[in-house]
Amino acid sequence: MRVPTGVAGFDEIVEGGLPSGRLTVVSGPPGSGKTTFTAQFVAEGLRRNEPSMYVTMHETQRQLVEDMSRYSFGFETLARSEQFHFAHLADSSGALNGNGATKPSVSTLTNKLVALANSRDVERLVVDSTMLLRHMFGTDEGVTRFVNALRSVDATTLLVSEMTDPTAYADEHYLAHGVVFFHNYLEGDGMHRGVQVLKMRGTAIDADIRPIEFTDAGLSVDGERTAVA
Amino acid sequence: MRVPTGVAGFDEIVEGGLPSGRLTVVSGPPGSGKTTFTAQFVAEGLRRNEPSMYVTMHETQRQLVEDMSRYSFGFETLARSEQFHFAHLADSSGALNGNGATKPSVSTLTNKLVALANSRDVERLVVDSTMLLRHMFGTDEGVTRFVNALRSVDATTLLVSEMTDPTAYADEHYLAHGVVFFHNYLEGDGMHRGVQVLKMRGTAIDADIRPIEFTDAGLSVDGERTAVA
Amino acid sequence: MRVPTGVAGFDEIVEGGLPSGRLTVVSGPPGSGKTTFTAQFVAEGLRRNEPSMYVTMHETQRQLVEDMSRYSFGFETLARSEQFHFAHLADSSGALNGNGATKPSVSTLTNKLVALANSRDVERLVVDSTMLLRHMFGTDEGVTRFVNALRSVDATTLLVSEMTDPTAYADEHYLAHGVVFFHNYLEGDGMHRGVQVLKMRGTAIDADIRPIEFTDAGLSVDGERTAVA
Amino acid sequence: MRVPTGVAGFDEIVEGGLPSGRLTVVSGPPGSGKTTFTAQFVAEGLRRNEPSMYVTMHETQRQLVEDMSRYSFGFETLARSEQFHFAHLADSSGALNGNGATKPSVSTLTNKLVALANSRDVERLVVDSTMLLRHMFGTDEGVTRFVNALRSVDATTLLVSEMTDPTAYADEHYLAHGVVFFHNYLEGDGMHRGVQVLKMRGTAIDADIRPIEFTDAGLSVDGERTAVA
Amino acid sequence: MRVPTGVAGFDEIVEGGLPSGRLTVVSGPPGSGKTTFTAQFVAEGLRRNEPSMYVTMHETQRQLVEDMSRYSFGFETLARSEQFHFAHLADSSGALNGNGATKPSVSTLTNKLVALANSRDVERLVVDSTMLLRHMFGTDEGVTRFVNALRSVDATTLLVSEMTDPTAYADEHYLAHGVVFFHNYLEGDGMHRGVQVLKMRGTAIDADIRPIEFTDAGLSVDGERTAVA
Amino acid sequence: MRVPTGVAGFDEIVEGGLPSGRLTVVSGPPGSGKTTFTAQFVAEGLRRNEPSMYVTMHETQRQLVEDMSRYSFGFETLARSEQFHFAHLADSSGALNGNGATKPSVSTLTNKLVALANSRDVERLVVDSTMLLRHMFGTDEGVTRFVNALRSVDATTLLVSEMTDPTAYADEHYLAHGVVFFHNYLEGDGMHRGVQVLKMRGTAIDADIRPIEFTDAGLSVDGERTAVA
Repeated sequence: MRVPTGVAGFDEIVEGGLPSGRLTVVSGPPGSGKTTFTAQFVAEGLRRNEPSMYVTMHETQRQLVEDMSRYSFGFETLARSEQFHFAHLADSSGALNGNGATKPSVSTLTNKLVALANSRDVERLVVDSTMLLRHMFGTDEGVTRFVNALRSVDATTLLVSEMTDPTAYADEHYLAHGVVFFHNYLEGDGMHRGVQVLKMRGTAIDADIRPIEFTDAGLSVDGERTAVA
Repeated sequence: MRVPTGVAGFDEIVEGGLPSGRLTVVSGPPGSGKTTFTAQFVAEGLRRNEPSMYVTMHETQRQLVEDMSRYSFGFETLARSEQFHFAHLADSSGALNGNGATKPSVSTLTNKLVALANSRDVERLVVDSTMLLRHMFGTDEGVTRFVNALRSVDATTLLVSEMTDPTAYADEHYLAHGVVFFHNYLEGDGMHRGVQVLKMRGTAIDADIRPIEFTDAGLSVDGERTAVA
Repeated sequence: MRVPTGVAGFDEIVEGGLPSGRLTVVSGPPGSGKTTFTAQFVAEGLRRNEPSMYVTMHETQRQLVEDMSRYSFGFETLARSEQFHFAHLADSSGALNGNGATKPSVSTLTNKLVALANSRDVERLVVDSTMLLRHMFGTDEGVTRFVNALRSVDATTLLVSEMTDPTAYADEHYLAHGVVFFHNYLEGDGMHRGVQVLKMRGTAIDADIRPIEFTDAGLSVDGERTAVA
Repeated sequence: MRVPTGVAGFDEIVEGGLPSGRLTVVSGPPGSGKTTFTAQFVAEGLRRNEPSMYVTMHETQRQLVEDMSRYSFGFETLARSEQFHFAHLADSSGALNGNGATKPSVSTLTNKLVALANSRDVERLVVDSTMLLRHMFGTDEGVTRFVNALRSVDATTLLVSEMTDPTAYADEHYLAHGVVFFHNYLEGDGMHRGVQVLKMRGTAIDADIRPIEFTDAGLSVDGERTAVA
Repeated sequence: MRVPTGVAGFDEIVEGGLPSGRLTVVSGPPGSGKTTFTAQFVAEGLRRNEPSMYVTMHETQRQLVEDMSRYSFGFETLARSEQFHFAHLADSSGALNGNGATKPSVSTLTNKLVALANSRDVERLVVDSTMLLRHMFGTDEGVTRFVNALRSVDATTLLVSEMTDPTAYADEHYLAHGVVFFHNYLEGDGMHRGVQVLKMRGTAIDADIRPIEFTDAGLSVDGERTAVA
Repeated sequence: MRVPTGVAGFDEIVEGGLPSGRLTVVSGPPGSGKTTFTAQFVAEGLRRNEPSMYVTMHETQRQLVEDMSRYSFGFETLARSEQFHFAHLADSSGALNGNGATKPSVSTLTNKLVALANSRDVERLVVDSTMLLRHMFGTDEGVTRFVNALRSVDATTLLVSEMTDPTAYADEHYLAHGVVFFHNYLEGDGMHRGVQVLKMRGTAIDADIRPIEFTDAGLSVDGERTAVA
C-alpha cells in the first residue's frame, strides 16, 4: 500500500512511497521543486501503466512537457500514454475556468473533479494549486471544503500548496494525511535545497530536512545526510 | 480521580493521568502526535471497558483505524468493542455536517454533542478539532461557546486545537483545565519531537519540554530528560 | 492602606500588599498561576473576615474549590464562610450569562456588578476574565468602559487579563493602578516560572522578574533572587 | 523660552526645559513614569505660580493626589492652589464624558478644550491620554485632528501616548514638537528604567537612553551615564 | 531558446539567457537595479533588431532615456529604432490611464496589452509594475488574472514586482516561469548589492546571491563569487 | 543638472546634488532630521535666488522659522525673500484644509498644487508630508495618485514620508526618482544618526549609511566614514 514517487532517495525515507489512496500536501517557496516532484510522481505512475491525472491552473500540457524536457525521466514520452489525463483549469484571458464575474461554486467544481478522477479509475492525481483555488473560490472556507472532498478521491493525491502566509500552517496541512516541505537554506558556501517530510500518518518518519538537488535525471534526495539548518 | 492516558511515560508527569471529568486541550504542528495521543487515550479507556467516544471532522472510523494499525496498542480490535462510539461530522462533499449554505447553529450542535456524550455515560471523549469547528461556526465566538459547553460534559475530554495563529494562545487554552503542547525542535543532530504540559489545574507539573518518540507501541515520553530548546 | 495577598514572598515586594481600593491587573500565559494567585488573595481576605467576592466566567464554585484543594491554604473551608460571595457569569449552554443572540449591555452588567460589590461592602473582589468580557461585550470599547467602571468599585480588585495579543499591552494595563505579570522562561536546566510587578502606582517597586513556584501551600515568590531572563 | 519640568536631571538634557508653547508627546509602557513626569511638570508650574491644567480620562483629582503623595515634591499642597485646574473626562459608569451611544464630535471636544485652556491663560497643560481619545473619537483620524488642534494651544503641552502598536510610531510622534520615551530594559543584574528624548525641534539633543529612577523626591535622571541597551 | 539579457555576467548563470517566450518576475527594494535590468534587456533586443516593447506606469519615454543616459549601453540611440515600442499607462493628473473614478476592467486592459504585444510581433516585453497594477485594478485577484494572461503573450516577458509585503512571496512569484531577486545586504565594510535567480523552470540554476554592481556600462554580475549573507 | 542641497557633506555623495526636476522622498523616524534637511534645501535655493516653495501641513511659517532659528544657515532672513513661497494646508481646528466632513478631492488638490508650483516657476519644492496626505485623502490610492502627479511638477521636489509601516517600503519609495533615509542606530557608546541614499536614478551612489550630525550650522554628513550598523 505504498505508492513509489520515482524520485531518487525519497521513497526510502517514507517506507517505500506515499500512502495509497491518501492526500499529501507539497509546500515550498517558488522554484523549490514542487512541480518537478509532482511531474516525477505522475511519470512513475505512467511508467507502471497506472491511470494518472494532472490538474493544474498554472500551465498547459505543452508548457509542462517543455519544462520537464531537460530531465531524463521521460515526461514527454510518458505524457503521450493513454493513461495520462491532463486538465488545465484556466482559459487564456486569465479567468480561472469560469466567467471572471461569476465565481465557480465550490460544490460544482469539487464534484466535477472528484467524478472525473473516479470515473477514469485514476490511481495518481496531482492538483496544482491551493493559491489559485483561493482565487477561484474567493474564501478560505471554500478551499477547505475542496481539500476535504479531495480526501475522498480514491487516487493517491498530491496537492501543491503555496505558503501564502509563511508564519502559519494552513488548513490543508492539518487536513492532509501527509505533508512534504521543500526548503531553501543558507549553509557555509551558499544556498542549498532541502526536503522535509513533516507529517505522514501511518508511516515511520522523522521530520529532518534532507539535502535535495536538481540533477539531469530529476530531483534527488540524499537520505544519508541531514541539513543542520 | 486521575484518568491514565496509556501513553508510555506521560501519566508519570501528570500525577497518574488527566484530571477526571475535565477538559484538556492538545495542540501542536501537523504530524506532531496529536491524533495518536488521542487514539491511545481512547484505547486505554476501551481496555478498561469504559464507554469512550471519538468525535472527529477529520476522518472516518476506517481511516483512523488504518492510521493506527502500524502501532501495537491494538486500536483496531478495541474499536470493535461495544463501548466504542465514533461520530464523523462531515459528509463526502466536504460540507461539514450540514448544508454548506446554512451554518449549523452553535447551540444545536453543542446540545447534540453534550447530550450524546452524557446519554452514553461516556467516560472518555475526544473532539477533533477546533480548526474545523471554526469553519463550521464561522465565528471565534461560536467556538468559544462550544468549548465552554464542552467543559460541562461529564466525560474526561481531549480537544484537539491546531494553532492557526502561532503567535498567540487561543481562547480554548485559557478555558481548558489542562493544556498539552507537542513540539518539533532542532537540536544537534536533527529534528526532535517533544511534549510539554503547559497547564494542568490541581496537578503538580512543571512546564518543561520532554522528548517524545513514535515507537511501534505508540507515543513514548522520556520523563527523565528535558529538552533544552 | 495595604492589602496583603497572603502569597508567600509577594507582599514583601509591594510594600506590604496591594493598594487598598484600587484595581490591579493580573496577566500571564495559561497555567502560569493567575487563578491560584486570585484564590489566595480571596482566601487571605476571608481569613481576616473581610467580605470577599469572586466573579468568574470560567468555572463554578465547586470547580474552583476542587482546583484549589491540593493546596493547604484552606480554600474549601474558607469558601464556606458567610463572607464569601461567588458569582458565575455563564450558563451551561456556553452562552455567557445572557441569551447568545442578544449581547448584554455594557452599562447594565457593569452597574449590576458595581452595585453588587458595593452592596455587600465587599473589600476584596476578583473578576475573571477580560477574554470572556470581550466575547460578552463584543467590542474592545465595551471592555474598556467596564474596566473603567471597575475602578470606581470600593473594593481592592484583581482583574485577570489573558494576553490575547502578546505583542502589545492592552487598555486595561494602562487603566489599572497596578499590573502583575506571570512568566514562563527558559533558563539552564528547564522552564521556570516568574512574577513581575510591572506597575504599581504609589508604591516603591522594581520591574524585576522574580522566581515563583507552586508549592503545597500555594504560590511562593523568591524575593531575594532575580531571574536574568 | 524654556519651560523647566522640575524633574531632577531632565532639564539639563534639553537645554533647560521643554520648548515654550509647544507640544511634547510622552510615551512608554505601563508603570514607566509617564504620569509622575506629567505631575512633576504641573507641580513645577504651580510652584512658579503659573496657571496649569491637568486634563485626564484616567483618574479623579483625588486619585492623582493620592498616587503622588508618596513623593516629596508636594503635589497635594500645590494642587490646592488657585492656579491649578483639573478636568476629568469620564463619568463613573465608564462612559467617556458623553453618552456611550453617541460619540462626542471631535470638533466640539477639541474646541472646548482649546477654549478652556486659552481662557484660563493656562501656561502648562497635560492631556492624558491618546488611548482614551481613540476610544472617545472612534477613529485614528479624529485623534490626529485633535492632536493637530492641541498644537495651536498657547500653553506648553504634554500629551501622554500609550504605544498601542509598539512596532510603529503613531501620528502624534510625527506631529509633536518633542517626543520623550520611557523605557524598561534588561541589563546585568535586572530591569532598569530609562528615558530618551527622541525628538525636540530647535534643541540640541542626542537620542541616548539615560537611566531614570523613582526616588522619594520623584523621578530622577542620570544625565551622565548612557544605557547601552 | 535562450534570450540573452545583455547584462554582463548574468546570462552565464542562466544557461545563456532567459527562457524564450516565458514570463520572468523581477523583484527587489527601491534602487536595487530592476529598471536598469529591464532597460538593458530591451536594449539587447533592439541591438539584435528584435521588436521590443516597454510598458510602464512609472515614467515617460523621455524620463527613461534620461535615466539610462549615464550608462554606455546606448539606450538613447537604440530607443529611436523602429523596433522600439513604448507605452506609458498614466496621464499627468496621476490617474492611471483611465478616469480616476472608474477602474479599468481587468479584461479590457489585459486584452489590449496582449493584442498590442502580439500584433507588433514583439519578441521582448517589459511590464512595469505590479504595484501600480494593484492600484489600477483595485484587487489582488485582478492582478493575478492579469499576470496569468501575461503568460500567454508570445514575447519573452519581464514583469517588475515591488515586494509590498516583504514577508511573503506574492502570487506572481508562483505564477511566473522565472524569478530574479535583487538584494541589498550588509557585509564587512558596507552595503553591497546582489542578484539571485530564485527560480527558473527548465534551467540549471542555483539560488545563490551573487554580487552585482552598477558600472558605467550598466549592471555587472560577478558570477564567480557568492555572497555569504 | 544637479541641484545642490546646501547640506554639508551631502552633495558630495550624490554627484553634486539632487537630480534636477525630479522627485526625491525623504524618510526616517521622528526627530531624525527630515524637516531640517528640507529647510536647508529651500534655504540653498533662496540663497541662489531660485523661487522656492514649502508646502506643509505640519506647521505655520512662523513655527518653521522659529524651529530653524538655532541654526546659522539663516532661514529667517532668507524666508523674507520674495522668492520664498509658503503654503500651510491646515486650519486651526485641526481639519486639514477643508471641511472635516468632506474630504478634498485628490484631483482638485493635486491640480491646485501643481498649478501653484508651475505658475511661480518654482525651482525647488518641499511637500510635508505623506502621513497627513493619507489623512486628507483617506485612501492609499489617493496618495499614490498625488505622488504620481507630483512627479510631473517642473521643480526639483522633496517629499517627506513618515514610515507608518516600518516593515515595508511604501508606494512613494518606488515611484520617486530618489530615496534618502535617515536612521538612528546604536553603536558602542550610544545612539548615532545616519543618512543613507537608498536610490537615485541616473546617479552613481552606494547605499551605505553615513554618520550625520546636527551642528550649529545645520546637518552635516561625514562622507568619509561608513556606519557598520
